[in-house]
Amino acid sequence: MTVREKLKAIQSRNQSRLCIGLDTDLRRLPAHLRERENAVLDFNLAVIEQCSSMACAFKINLAFYEKLGARGFEIVRETLAAIPDNIVSIADAKRGDIGNTSSAYAEAFFGSFGFDALTVSPYLGRDSVAPFLAYPDKLVFVLALTSNSGSSDIQRLLAGGKAVYQHVIDEARTWTDHDNIGFVVGATHPAELAGIRQQIPDSILLIPGVGAQGGDVAATMRANAAGPALVNVSRGILYADGDQDFPANVYQAARQFRDLIGAESAAHSDDADRFRAP
Amino acid sequence: MTVREKLKAIQSRNQSRLCIGLDTDLRRLPAHLRERENAVLDFNLAVIEQCSSMACAFKINLAFYEKLGARGFEIVRETLAAIPDNIVSIADAKRGDIGNTSSAYAEAFFGSFGFDALTVSPYLGRDSVAPFLAYPDKLVFVLALTSNSGSSDIQRLLAGGKAVYQHVIDEARTWTDHDNIGFVVGATHPAELAGIRQQIPDSILLIPGVGAQGGDVAATMRANAAGPALVNVSRGILYADGDQDFPANVYQAARQFRDLIGAESAAHSDDADRFRAP
Repeated sequence: MTVREKLKAIQSRNQSRLCIGLDTDLRRLPAHLRERENAVLDFNLAVIEQCSSMACAFKINLAFYEKLGARGFEIVRETLAAIPDNIVSIADAKRGDIGNTSSAYAEAFFGSFGFDALTVSPYLGRDSVAPFLAYPDKLVFVLALTSNSGSSDIQRLLAGGKAVYQHVIDEARTWTDHDNIGFVVGATHPAELAGIRQQIPDSILLIPGVGAQGGDVAATMRANAAGPALVNVSRGILYADGDQDFPANVYQAARQFRDLIGAESAAHSDDADRFRAP
Repeated sequence: MTVREKLKAIQSRNQSRLCIGLDTDLRRLPAHLRERENAVLDFNLAVIEQCSSMACAFKINLAFYEKLGARGFEIVRETLAAIPDNIVSIADAKRGDIGNTSSAYAEAFFGSFGFDALTVSPYLGRDSVAPFLAYPDKLVFVLALTSNSGSSDIQRLLAGGKAVYQHVIDEARTWTDHDNIGFVVGATHPAELAGIRQQIPDSILLIPGVGAQGGDVAATMRANAAGPALVNVSRGILYADGDQDFPANVYQAARQFRDLIGAESAAHSDDADRFRAP
């Protein structure tokens, strides 16, 4: 089963397009957890246990683990082991380097760790992304238009009447013969998201920026229309109000986001089946 | 002392602009080393010991260590500890993410590991690079025009008559008030390197692509003219001919590259002092 098929199955089963981002930051954990020796891992395991019926994917943001050193690597491994087999695991790593180095990163994330999917940066072009796309059963999310303010600096430059991020989308789709590529498009740009949907109606989009970053779920799902997508929420779920009730607060937040995404998807999709089917 | 000052001092002391890239790949080590339990670390320590008088910097390519898991992290730490204090350490990581994530990466590389310098990707724009630039004493190398063939795909797109990589250079220089930014420009593009040197005569360039990637030292140093630079060689030194004589073969290769870079610099610089002084 490819990751694409796995995603389709779990989105249907959990009626969910919610991806939960594990940007776990020790300083923001509930006070009673923060004291524990394995606070970060314990937190992740509790989030996964509580929310696995609400999510289609968990996204692990490597930065928050790299700063913990070797122990951070072990936590990633143990977190991955706790994600149920039918839920998609995404390494949010934004890697991308010359060919032989990207091959080593692909070995790290797809081989050694065993992630299902990975985010990659397109700045170095075709041969920097090809080693990831050489895994036909995995899923590679190429950064197109990111959710942050700096997305205006390079990604929106107009080259030949087309923004750089549109060039990325057009070119990157020619870099693989397999159905193993998707794109990252921020929820903070609903107008551009709608345009991208017309450009690539059937591509899987990973959409971050809902929650703490201010992206609006209704505007996002209207723009996404019937396209296959995962909507990521990290801080808006991990650090939800009421942390003295952790992990119940996290479960409630995940459920609300899943339901809101689902309702808004249904309202703006004329093909209810397709929008859940990457 | 800032890293910029440290670089200037060691380049003068060792009469060297050579940066040695530790892209250490177990499969390419000398056969008699490969069997050892700590082959990768032992190899790095031998290279550092042999070559410290020939280099101004060592560059650690994170991909080759991430694929080794938690042990890889320890090897990075132990390799860093072996680099003499007066030699610059560079994390070749090409990171870059939204603000809070880049902050975590900055903590990982500058804080936890304690690297002197780091390579970062500009695709996400200002707020993705700012957290690294917030360390005024460190050095941040922003990718401009990379050495690989895929550098044509995005970096060379023309936007308003200017290539994307030129926009990167112009914009990134406005992202810091400190003298802590440099750029990565591949040795495989000598004509563009010459143009960049006219654009930014005083910026420090990290120039990879000499050796295995085919960049020519003479053409590179001619294009670089009098500008402050580090020329990186990885495979061309690590896996030099005659590996049965390791580490003498590595020392010889490093010495040859240092001397060739120095001779070509002197031949193409009308200001012999300045070319060694970032």
